[in-house]
Amino acid sequence: MAPNDTGYEKQHLSTASMTDSHNASFKAADLVIQLSSAPKHKPNVVNFGSVFTDHMLTVEWSVAEGWKAPLIRPFGNLSLHPACSALHYGIQLFEGLKVYRGVDNCLRLFRPMLNMNRMANSAKRACLPAFDQSELLECIRRLVEVDQDWVPLSDSGSLYIRPTFISTEASLGVKKPTSALLYVIMCQAGSYFHTEAGALTLWADPKYTRAWKGGTGDCKMGGNYGCSLLAQYEAGDYGCQQVLWLYGEEHQITEAGTMNIFLHWTNEDGEEELATPPLDGIILPGVTRQSILELTRKWGEFQVTECHLTMTQLCCALKQQRVKEMFGSGTACMICPIGHIVYQGENLHVPYQDKHSQLTSRIAKELSDIQYGRTPSNWTFLV
Amino acid sequence: MAPNDTGYEKQHLSTASMTDSHNASFKAADLVIQLSSAPKHKPNVVNFGSVFTDHMLTVEWSVAEGWKAPLIRPFGNLSLHPACSALHYGIQLFEGLKVYRGVDNCLRLFRPMLNMNRMANSAKRACLPAFDQSELLECIRRLVEVDQDWVPLSDSGSLYIRPTFISTEASLGVKKPTSALLYVIMCQAGSYFHTEAGALTLWADPKYTRAWKGGTGDCKMGGNYGCSLLAQYEAGDYGCQQVLWLYGEEHQITEAGTMNIFLHWTNEDGEEELATPPLDGIILPGVTRQSILELTRKWGEFQVTECHLTMTQLCCALKQQRVKEMFGSGTACMICPIGHIVYQGENLHVPYQDKHSQLTSRIAKELSDIQYGRTPSNWTFLV
Repeated sequence: MAPNDTGYEKQHLSTASMTDSHNASFKAADLVIQLSSAPKHKPNVVNFGSVFTDHMLTVEWSVAEGWKAPLIRPFGNLSLHPACSALHYGIQLFEGLKVYRGVDNCLRLFRPMLNMNRMANSAKRACLPAFDQSELLECIRRLVEVDQDWVPLSDSGSLYIRPTFISTEASLGVKKPTSALLYVIMCQAGSYFHTEAGALTLWADPKYTRAWKGGTGDCKMGGNYGCSLLAQYEAGDYGCQQVLWLYGEEHQITEAGTMNIFLHWTNEDGEEELATPPLDGIILPGVTRQSILELTRKWGEFQVTECHLTMTQLCCALKQQRVKEMFGSGTACMICPIGHIVYQGENLHVPYQDKHSQLTSRIAKELSDIQYGRTPSNWTFLV
Repeated sequence: MAPNDTGYEKQHLSTASMTDSHNASFKAADLVIQLSSAPKHKPNVVNFGSVFTDHMLTVEWSVAEGWKAPLIRPFGNLSLHPACSALHYGIQLFEGLKVYRGVDNCLRLFRPMLNMNRMANSAKRACLPAFDQSELLECIRRLVEVDQDWVPLSDSGSLYIRPTFISTEASLGVKKPTSALLYVIMCQAGSYFHTEAGALTLWADPKYTRAWKGGTGDCKMGGNYGCSLLAQYEAGDYGCQQVLWLYGEEHQITEAGTMNIFLHWTNEDGEEELATPPLDGIILPGVTRQSILELTRKWGEFQVTECHLTMTQLCCALKQQRVKEMFGSGTACMICPIGHIVYQGENLHVPYQDKHSQLTSRIAKELSDIQYGRTPSNWTFLV
């Protein structure tokens, strides 16, 4: 089935950055499908990202031959040269999106062109070749179609799609790849965080920095995540599930783990505001983040602002009881309320009652209604 | 042959950070060797890092079983799960060292325990498991022995050794790896840079930042390099071979491409000085860097200082003709003189006559005499 006719974001389809024939994209029309002869058993409840579907999409590129025809084939290992520069120099990037089985049994993606476009931006930053975003989306749609039985019938479950793009340059020396592999795998999503209380506890310490101006914090490149691991484990020593990443002398609030951060508060001017850090180069431009901004701006019930927020501002607002809620947003976790922040030896309590916190649950419900087809929206893309 | 008896740095052998049996290291005594039945033809002149020897070392680790026995086997592709977190989250690191064929036909490594120790530090930062550095070195020595015919008989050639350590965790979700692969490949070294004049031209622009306090700039993690590629190619647009990475508002000089940076000048106090940025967390602790510092301090002929240097200081010194030489240092390039720096629209000329620049060539000769066994030294490790 083609993009649905309820108003899919067609303007994005023309943003493919094809500048010359050398970089001409692969085409979904050339797709070759090799079906698996031994489909797997589908377990019911699993951890996030550990059980994969029966098929994967692979598209090879080389500077000599350009893009080869895309291929859907049985899920299996990759054979990589040990000098492969994706393994030595982190020349790699990924995306994350989900496919939902709606109440009408139709399968829906949520604003997938935003992921395709972000992937193209990451590729540019990583010196990997350009491709036509809408052709990739169509290939992904076909992959989902092939493995459609893996999408759970559930009002909270989904299948997680992981487009990945790596250099396969088989020589050392830090240089632009002359060969690359774009591939897409899909896995059962499960629950990303394991919090019984339902609200996250974050560790805020300036000791580690996630991203910096002039770096790659606004792209989904692998290196952004590998460098975060040690901090994440140190957070565990303080009883926290995730890091709240700070930036600069003023301890600006930036992101938490794999989530963007939102603060619902009464700001210093006495106005009710939903605030999140701006896309100034160190923040990942999250699809859920953008959707929350657009959704709440449409409501027009309070200020919705992209602005720098410091820990001093937050501590002061908590003390003066001006904070209503804080939450993280991301494709893996969707919306996750924040209950505590450990900062400078203090355990800061962020207002949070239960799973039905006002704004957090309202946004979660509106987004989920769109994703599961309970509310018609041009943000969905029918498979 | 064991570490030589001319005074090899034994103190390093005890620094292995083995804390419990769970992390107990692999042992070189368990090494299994499977020889290739089809040795390759050895081409004479090649680009850096494109032709590999006949064998490789692999050592597998898993949280369940610990380290397996190390294996020397025919060089070949790796079979990796497509969700492998080395490919998604840059959980990967490497080292680089060289083996030299001396004038006495003996094979020598140059201060290899410094590489082993740095590798162990990188592993800690990347949340990869600990290993005994001296056991790894012994495994590498055995690998070199197996492929010893690949080490060229030349007073400038060498064989480049690339230890690599990657997560093989086969599930998504940003987390500590439960399986990993340590491997070592070796390749013909050739010349790293292609400069006819012999001196590098660097592009210094604050637009991109290599590393940041609280990041991984002092480790050899893959992400440090992938994020540098775009800047390196933009440098090419300005006729430069490499980036001179700046840091902060003051445009501190940090590193150039894959090299540490040295400035030989008359400093602001009128003293002759060899200066290089300090190891403050954003500088890679280079083996060549450390050796140059130790060597020149032993000479006692001028100040040898680790201190912050800004572009303002450099521009002023160039204007006042207080700069004698600048050079980069690294295992791949060894010592590389710098001839020009493009900064804020200006092409700054750094004094550099020819390949026999005074200090650059004196240091290069002393290090090379040690590496090729012309000068006895406890910095070499006999294979």
